[in-house]
Amino acid sequence: MKALLLIAHGSRRKQSNDEVFALAERLRNNCSEQYNIIHAGFLELADVLIPDGIKKCADDGATEIIVLPYFLNSGRHVVEDIPNIVNETIPHYPDVDIKIAQHLGASDLIIDLLITTANSTK
Amino acid sequence: MKALLLIAHGSRRKQSNDEVFALAERLRNNCSEQYNIIHAGFLELADVLIPDGIKKCADDGATEIIVLPYFLNSGRHVVEDIPNIVNETIPHYPDVDIKIAQHLGASDLIIDLLITTANSTK
Repeated sequence: MKALLLIAHGSRRKQSNDEVFALAERLRNNCSEQYNIIHAGFLELADVLIPDGIKKCADDGATEIIVLPYFLNSGRHVVEDIPNIVNETIPHYPDVDIKIAQHLGASDLIIDLLITTANSTK
Repeated sequence: MKALLLIAHGSRRKQSNDEVFALAERLRNNCSEQYNIIHAGFLELADVLIPDGIKKCADDGATEIIVLPYFLNSGRHVVEDIPNIVNETIPHYPDVDIKIAQHLGASDLIIDLLITTANSTK
């Protein structure tokens, strides 16, 4: 059972956090063949926090969890904070393979996304 | 002459800002047919700020500028701060058509980007 855990920064603005949950729902609707379990969580400022998100995936029966940082730049949050929290959580789930994906900004597809977004401007 | 101005948040961490300039350089190498002029700038904390970025585009001869917010969520920065700064700048360039694109997170392509990034995890 493969799980995807989308991790955003988290905001004091509820609408911003709700966008992340809505994105997780869109992922569920589009990628359920690749990922049996999909949850969203936050680094700070909002529930669900990262350890709770990992627990949700494990409780749902995940044997593999990909933690996907929903960040554009490789700042301190991506380089230190998320790995530190995930690494502290790993020993609690000895039977689950937990890995951290690259942040989004590292993908070659980001160029296509930028140009498509720019071109769609009315 | 069409210009693309990529606007990131800006960071105290120089490496993070340099990633944005590197991304603008990749855009130049891939999209020079669609955009004659491509610059990067920041909302705060780092040079080039938005008015300076717009001035660079105009000085290079832009008649149309697409300001592209390099943000994933529609937080206050996207909804208020960037439009406010751009709208204050527009009257200084009566001969330039300046528009703001959607933020990246609003694109349908974001789903592909998320899954491709997750799947590339070793």
